[in-house]
Amino acid sequence: MVVKKVGILGATGTVGQRFITLLDEHPEFEIAVLGASARSSGKKYEDAARWKQSKAMPEKVAKMIVSECDPKLFSECSIVFSGLDAEFAGEIEKNFRAANIPVLSNAKNYRRDPVVPLIVPTVNTEHFDVVKKQQEQLGLQRGFIVTNSNCSTAGVVVPLKAMQDAFGPIEKVTVTTMQAISGAGYPGVSSLDILDNVVPFIGGEEEKIEWEVRKILGSTNEDLSGFKLTDTVVSAQCNRVPVLDGHTSCVAVKFAGKAPSVEEIKKALVNYRCEANKLGCFSAPKQPIHVFDEKNPDRPQPRLDREAERGYAVSVGRIRPDSIFDIKFVSLVHNTVLGAAGAGILNAEVAVKKGLI
Amino acid sequence: MVVKKVGILGATGTVGQRFITLLDEHPEFEIAVLGASARSSGKKYEDAARWKQSKAMPEKVAKMIVSECDPKLFSECSIVFSGLDAEFAGEIEKNFRAANIPVLSNAKNYRRDPVVPLIVPTVNTEHFDVVKKQQEQLGLQRGFIVTNSNCSTAGVVVPLKAMQDAFGPIEKVTVTTMQAISGAGYPGVSSLDILDNVVPFIGGEEEKIEWEVRKILGSTNEDLSGFKLTDTVVSAQCNRVPVLDGHTSCVAVKFAGKAPSVEEIKKALVNYRCEANKLGCFSAPKQPIHVFDEKNPDRPQPRLDREAERGYAVSVGRIRPDSIFDIKFVSLVHNTVLGAAGAGILNAEVAVKKGLI
Amino acid sequence: MVVKKVGILGATGTVGQRFITLLDEHPEFEIAVLGASARSSGKKYEDAARWKQSKAMPEKVAKMIVSECDPKLFSECSIVFSGLDAEFAGEIEKNFRAANIPVLSNAKNYRRDPVVPLIVPTVNTEHFDVVKKQQEQLGLQRGFIVTNSNCSTAGVVVPLKAMQDAFGPIEKVTVTTMQAISGAGYPGVSSLDILDNVVPFIGGEEEKIEWEVRKILGSTNEDLSGFKLTDTVVSAQCNRVPVLDGHTSCVAVKFAGKAPSVEEIKKALVNYRCEANKLGCFSAPKQPIHVFDEKNPDRPQPRLDREAERGYAVSVGRIRPDSIFDIKFVSLVHNTVLGAAGAGILNAEVAVKKGLI
Amino acid sequence: MVVKKVGILGATGTVGQRFITLLDEHPEFEIAVLGASARSSGKKYEDAARWKQSKAMPEKVAKMIVSECDPKLFSECSIVFSGLDAEFAGEIEKNFRAANIPVLSNAKNYRRDPVVPLIVPTVNTEHFDVVKKQQEQLGLQRGFIVTNSNCSTAGVVVPLKAMQDAFGPIEKVTVTTMQAISGAGYPGVSSLDILDNVVPFIGGEEEKIEWEVRKILGSTNEDLSGFKLTDTVVSAQCNRVPVLDGHTSCVAVKFAGKAPSVEEIKKALVNYRCEANKLGCFSAPKQPIHVFDEKNPDRPQPRLDREAERGYAVSVGRIRPDSIFDIKFVSLVHNTVLGAAGAGILNAEVAVKKGLI
Repeated sequence: MVVKKVGILGATGTVGQRFITLLDEHPEFEIAVLGASARSSGKKYEDAARWKQSKAMPEKVAKMIVSECDPKLFSECSIVFSGLDAEFAGEIEKNFRAANIPVLSNAKNYRRDPVVPLIVPTVNTEHFDVVKKQQEQLGLQRGFIVTNSNCSTAGVVVPLKAMQDAFGPIEKVTVTTMQAISGAGYPGVSSLDILDNVVPFIGGEEEKIEWEVRKILGSTNEDLSGFKLTDTVVSAQCNRVPVLDGHTSCVAVKFAGKAPSVEEIKKALVNYRCEANKLGCFSAPKQPIHVFDEKNPDRPQPRLDREAERGYAVSVGRIRPDSIFDIKFVSLVHNTVLGAAGAGILNAEVAVKKGLI
Repeated sequence: MVVKKVGILGATGTVGQRFITLLDEHPEFEIAVLGASARSSGKKYEDAARWKQSKAMPEKVAKMIVSECDPKLFSECSIVFSGLDAEFAGEIEKNFRAANIPVLSNAKNYRRDPVVPLIVPTVNTEHFDVVKKQQEQLGLQRGFIVTNSNCSTAGVVVPLKAMQDAFGPIEKVTVTTMQAISGAGYPGVSSLDILDNVVPFIGGEEEKIEWEVRKILGSTNEDLSGFKLTDTVVSAQCNRVPVLDGHTSCVAVKFAGKAPSVEEIKKALVNYRCEANKLGCFSAPKQPIHVFDEKNPDRPQPRLDREAERGYAVSVGRIRPDSIFDIKFVSLVHNTVLGAAGAGILNAEVAVKKGLI
Repeated sequence: MVVKKVGILGATGTVGQRFITLLDEHPEFEIAVLGASARSSGKKYEDAARWKQSKAMPEKVAKMIVSECDPKLFSECSIVFSGLDAEFAGEIEKNFRAANIPVLSNAKNYRRDPVVPLIVPTVNTEHFDVVKKQQEQLGLQRGFIVTNSNCSTAGVVVPLKAMQDAFGPIEKVTVTTMQAISGAGYPGVSSLDILDNVVPFIGGEEEKIEWEVRKILGSTNEDLSGFKLTDTVVSAQCNRVPVLDGHTSCVAVKFAGKAPSVEEIKKALVNYRCEANKLGCFSAPKQPIHVFDEKNPDRPQPRLDREAERGYAVSVGRIRPDSIFDIKFVSLVHNTVLGAAGAGILNAEVAVKKGLI
Repeated sequence: MVVKKVGILGATGTVGQRFITLLDEHPEFEIAVLGASARSSGKKYEDAARWKQSKAMPEKVAKMIVSECDPKLFSECSIVFSGLDAEFAGEIEKNFRAANIPVLSNAKNYRRDPVVPLIVPTVNTEHFDVVKKQQEQLGLQRGFIVTNSNCSTAGVVVPLKAMQDAFGPIEKVTVTTMQAISGAGYPGVSSLDILDNVVPFIGGEEEKIEWEVRKILGSTNEDLSGFKLTDTVVSAQCNRVPVLDGHTSCVAVKFAGKAPSVEEIKKALVNYRCEANKLGCFSAPKQPIHVFDEKNPDRPQPRLDREAERGYAVSVGRIRPDSIFDIKFVSLVHNTVLGAAGAGILNAEVAVKKGLI
């Protein structure tokens, strides 16, 4: 196996730090270049970054000199992972793509682009098929942008995909999230705002969930020129809670067709496998959805369950009939792994297997 | 004004402590007897109770000797407030009623009794009219039991009542709660279960909300022999979060008739007044519902808003159209004031004004 | 009683907000002008400030137009209270003094000035005697600057003063603090830094405690030209903990002379009264030090005890012999009341009684 | 290498659970029997334990049937690890020793026994030499009891040992701890007691630190018949803070001889190695003490540093001169690893290397 060199854009930020911890012992990817703002470039990473991970900063990374986010400085990289803020991601990611460097982006900027796949790696990796169209339009050989979803979207869309596969189209979904502070970056949420408190608002978050679910659960056009969104109507209510990592969602689902039983749903979730499993990707969770049954009525919980399969699995519990919709349940995702950096990494692994990188 | 002597059952517990702090400077009620379990009786209150309120224990109360929960020891009391655990409340409250002492109970035991009113004092005090039927059935002159709602029910039912009054019957409601730890009493929730965590399950809580809303929003029978529940279908999902006081709920509502606009709803909530206002009750909030508009998109928040009108008002914000139901909003209630002890006290004030005590 | 008009400098910040809540129902002071940065001036206060107090913003204040911190705009004020950041306080406070407006400052800038009193109002109000020297030097009739202490200093110096008064000079003191997040202002401490965490460092804090204690416990020169610091050696270790309000300190004390018994110390603390008591100041705590005895071995605690006497009292517990020093104990102060805004207000009340304002 | 079968006493408790997670992938020890109270025995472990670890319960362990703590049921075990409560540990551990099963205990019961070593595995493993005396006295071939220290003691004694080795006897030490809630077991600390709070008292904790440090830093008698305590005077002040894992301590030290410089101390801590290193024990930290220098003035922090070397290393920072003692610093230990279960495991590894097991 050839180890590929990779770059990280926005390497000093919260998502960038998570890219580093996840890539540190990755057998296929090796961190070659760290990109950040002009303010950080030229410094040693350990001097530029305010490290907030509970895993220590890898020694090799600590001594690396941070570069500006200029594609010329990343020419040895087969891939760049972007943890850039939306303010900068639009321009920079475009430049990297134009320089024929594949970009796996966590930023929101291109998620709604008609030829940019929006991929949760345990859900819709067949959307990579549109990459060719993107390259064709831009006259590029290797460069492309593929985005992963918003962090809270990821926790919802994995079980929904398993249900849609097993029981057909989903008509309506309500989601109420309780989101971790790490989702807001650093310094992010002031402690005065969240200690002994709930903040029932996260700007732009509800709109992201409501739209992204429909693109991710949707299909590619027959000619692979773009995507058909599902007709699912999603209504989201988003809250910030005093939790470090792990977004918890209370979800209710109405199917377009006949409602399955609770037992049928459990079975569908437990047995769900994704393409990343079949391709044998290194970071793919053995079981993309962990299910808690009646013996554990108070699970999933972020502190206990967010690390399931190193953060790449979604945990689901409390599956029960609903008096208004068909069923309701609780879902948990590690927001900085499957909901951010981990999604980018597993997406890249899939892209490599598919020959796109 | 004649000051009435009152007793507190379960005086050492969390709800009992809140009764004490709220009654401490009450102009109409004077704490005369404190009742608790045999383990506490005979002790000074300050030695029997593990005081967990941020307001200091009133000096007078500290030196009072705790009694057993025997009606004979409460003969001087015109009212007893019950903060008893459900395990004991059934028998003890019945005994007090039989002894012709009105019981304002926070326990769940009699909430579903066909002749026991379930009253949130800023919502349905006309349900007191069924007290006569209760007394008639039992051949009592003065004794009765009136319950207040579950803590999380209170936060939802106040805005729903204002909407029902203004726009007619409500067809469907979904509620996702984020509930404070004080709702579980002391020692209650282990810190290991809730620090950096969410627990997406509270035993029996969802069923309480789903049923209690329908009785509280319902009407009395024409002959005042009982209650007609509304046809509203309620689906609740309950979570415990690391908040000390204040239950936050994300609510979505579908009306049976034409949906009002967001502006119409805001106006209805702001202008809502209850019978306790008209009767001039001491503890009645001037404005039972505080409304946050677009200038404060991140409110209500428990830490900032739970003390609105000393905990007797409900705060509502983020009223906006919903893509599945008609509207959605966020509601906040102080769970140990309007959601528990305060409800009992304001209910008692109303009962006095109505001549029932 | 004539009500005096007052101004607040830095009115939109955390300390400024606390000045507003404390002054809202003050019988002697009326908020007339709110000063803040150019960015806020010209706006309504409710639009300029991000209100983070659990008590609602007073309605009158909400509609006031914020001014720049220019003495000309405060000419109607008999006093200004300064909650300015140190970055701006130096210049602005000097300007107000020069304009003959007394300044009660929470900023650190002038605390070490030889003719500026550093006063904790329940400790050393006799230091006001040096104000005349300050005015003389600058040729001012009414203008002066008086500072209050750093927030963590206040919790330590009140019991030390009571002990010094009763048992003579203190030779050595060690202090380990556990400080609330509100001490760092807003946004201040990132939630990612403090949830499930302790930060064992607060820049400059240890030096402040170690020096300020000596000035506050010191005396004025005989000719009232300045201050004599005590010889007390203080060693401080400061930590930030996940607490909203209330700084807790573990203290050990070695007296220069014979060590008193634990009982003698308790008695000295309980009986301690300050000049603000004797002068009958409105905000003066009836008992400046609340003492917990062996029946409450786990007190004081910030959540339960910070509001003692509206935050103007210090709470002390666990007084016990020490194997290295003479005694050790735990002390708690409300950091934004006696440790900040409240100190300024009570200092102003004393200054009025003394005829300085 | 022969894998040894081990038992766990108190397997369902918090310390027992930590033994299980640490032993799960241990190359030399295999969990053979799980012991707990009569209430749990006979059940599957997954049904008996309320699992509170963020690492999932090992599948093999989940299905094991819990036994009573009867030595007969542990006859296949070469070692038992005890996480028993003090209430039960005295009798049960004695029985296991009498049955010639070596007991590595986390309980406090035998720590002060004159022939029972009290060992922190990165500090004083030469104390194992007294085991022979213990066996001799009781006429045992293989049975013995060795205890590890109290959780908060461990964080202090490791750096003190390195300093004592390098700079000679320590005269005085003050310690102020900020301890995690996991140290109190489950349910342990009520969330109502610790959210937004500090509890400045932990029953018995200060006495443990003050005495245990002296035994651990002490030496064995020349004839290996027992231990000589050091003359170090220790004064401890203990606090509970809202942290899940990791005890932080602020420490000040006065040496009996000449005070070393800060640089000398840093060097001594960085270079410190223990017998477990030399013996090549599996769980031994490569560097028993991690040191933060001036570039990281706000470290160690429990959330970021508790997992250093899988919880077996102590982290030290803020080493600086003290105005009363010689130096002061901050120390952090993972309270359930090196402060509890991990200490037992590494102690056992050392005992195996020494031929005692």
